Amino acid sequence: MAERQSRPNLGEFAMIARYFAPLAAKFPGALNLKDDAALIAVSPGRELAVTTDAIVAGVHFLPDDPPDLIARKLLRVNLSDLAAMGATPLAYLLIAAFPKNTPEDWIAAFTEGLAADQAAFRIDLCGGDTVATTGPLTLAATALGAIDAGKALRRSTAGEGDIVYVSGSIGDAVLGLAVLRGSLPGLGTGARDWAVGRYRLPQPRVELGRRLVGLATSAIDVSDGLVADLGHVCVASGVGAVIEVDSVPLSPACREALVLGGIARDDLISGGDDYELLFTLPAARVEALAAVARETGLILTPIGRIVAGSGVSVVDAGGRDATPRTSGFRHF
Amino acid sequence: MAERQSRPNLGEFAMIARYFAPLAAKFPGALNLKDDAALIAVSPGRELAVTTDAIVAGVHFLPDDPPDLIARKLLRVNLSDLAAMGATPLAYLLIAAFPKNTPEDWIAAFTEGLAADQAAFRIDLCGGDTVATTGPLTLAATALGAIDAGKALRRSTAGEGDIVYVSGSIGDAVLGLAVLRGSLPGLGTGARDWAVGRYRLPQPRVELGRRLVGLATSAIDVSDGLVADLGHVCVASGVGAVIEVDSVPLSPACREALVLGGIARDDLISGGDDYELLFTLPAARVEALAAVARETGLILTPIGRIVAGSGVSVVDAGGRDATPRTSGFRHF
Repeated sequence: MAERQSRPNLGEFAMIARYFAPLAAKFPGALNLKDDAALIAVSPGRELAVTTDAIVAGVHFLPDDPPDLIARKLLRVNLSDLAAMGATPLAYLLIAAFPKNTPEDWIAAFTEGLAADQAAFRIDLCGGDTVATTGPLTLAATALGAIDAGKALRRSTAGEGDIVYVSGSIGDAVLGLAVLRGSLPGLGTGARDWAVGRYRLPQPRVELGRRLVGLATSAIDVSDGLVADLGHVCVASGVGAVIEVDSVPLSPACREALVLGGIARDDLISGGDDYELLFTLPAARVEALAAVARETGLILTPIGRIVAGSGVSVVDAGGRDATPRTSGFRHF
Repeated sequence: MAERQSRPNLGEFAMIARYFAPLAAKFPGALNLKDDAALIAVSPGRELAVTTDAIVAGVHFLPDDPPDLIARKLLRVNLSDLAAMGATPLAYLLIAAFPKNTPEDWIAAFTEGLAADQAAFRIDLCGGDTVATTGPLTLAATALGAIDAGKALRRSTAGEGDIVYVSGSIGDAVLGLAVLRGSLPGLGTGARDWAVGRYRLPQPRVELGRRLVGLATSAIDVSDGLVADLGHVCVASGVGAVIEVDSVPLSPACREALVLGGIARDDLISGGDDYELLFTLPAARVEALAAVARETGLILTPIGRIVAGSGVSVVDAGGRDATPRTSGFRHF
């Protein structure tokens, strides 16, 4: 971990020793965060998947969000990218630009969140950098995972005729954000809590991603929105896709919200931040996928097909165009 | 490269396609910055060294510094960490939080700087994330390098009796920063340009680091300051060190500044940001090191010894204590 001055109140060396070094204690290559770089061993026949995501207070999260949840979401959005490649998480680096008045108890709670998810997803801190900023809290993580060489799930390999699947449910995150903004006051407590939880604490589908290696022909995680992300797969693969809008799996919370009004189905299927896996596979592998669904306990829903051509068409049960008027995710 | 909204003017997808994807074109594992993660192959018997450094406008650089130099310094401080491990650079990820009014020509110049140093140091962009911020421009890079497994240069392995060496010259960066702040108005133009250049564009000692593998017993790069960084080696290795202050290599610019006054020797030897390599080796390997100096064209200067005990003592020619009154680098 590079030490820098221009530091938060606590002093960077003390902060690293007290709060960050324990997060790296189990990973020998982290060198206790006391060297110039971390060392990552890669088993023969494996390669590394490496991804990074940054979040800024007031742009990607609210400054008064619970610090442990900010930490866990930061880690999870990166884990979701590893999941979309089929990689097994190994270690991550943390980059944090702290405003000078960041209280020590904020950092304590933030690192508790990291510790909880390190245990849940079997990943360790291996390095990073902490600096001071005159601006909003800015965080990034770089996550490293291992995958059999040449076997990573890609966006560019979907094939015509493949079935398009999505894990879990879609639209909860955009509903959760609407609830946090004060919309949908009539929504029941259970639905509100579910949606806010899904927004604040996505479930990266790491185990699913691993099991899709050798099975799925392509994969991506749903971060920009279902339609937008399937569009990325189509562009990369040189194909088109047709989604049947009634097939898109919605949670009971989203169905309740639709009945109530105040949010539209278009908002749900074009909203982002769900961090589910969107993937394709040939019909011949549907049986094998059913076994994966059973073993992971996840609902895996077929929502459409890869077709010749380009672009994503959304159709209703009668085959009529039902393409959302909005597409992609807007942060607050 | 993760795509995000809340984006700068240009649009993030367009910005990535126009300015960043070309930086990744030669690295197959970057997948054209169009997938969820980059793929890094590691040769048998090698492992990865991974490091990250962040910089914030107004803290680590001036907002009106030339964008190409900001880019190159960002890359170089990370390369310096790889050099200190003896690793060969492979690829890097870029994290950028841009203020919303960042002009496109700023980004163009910034990426030109990256391109120049990618060529100079044989490293490619393989991924990253660009987001918008309401605060100052905030940048980070995560650099990956390869090193023979188990052979990385560490801080924790200096041995009693080893000679302490430093590459190049020390103090130029702190002099350059003083010049930029308007100090030392009497300093000659040549000295001013040299010092400012050294501050803005450090020379990571990548080739030297590679050649020190199997030769040096420990290494660190000089970022916090000569005395502070040698202190890190001493703590990690459980030893002490004695530096002879008159041996510390100063550039003609620093010597001119000392004669002129306005900056003290203590400031030079305790200032940071020089990004030279500080390393230790047994006397029996001095001949081998001389060959490295010849082949790299670098001046490698013995400045002291590793001793039993703890802490760094700085002494003058008469053996009297000459420990700097200040230690470690303060940013503006």
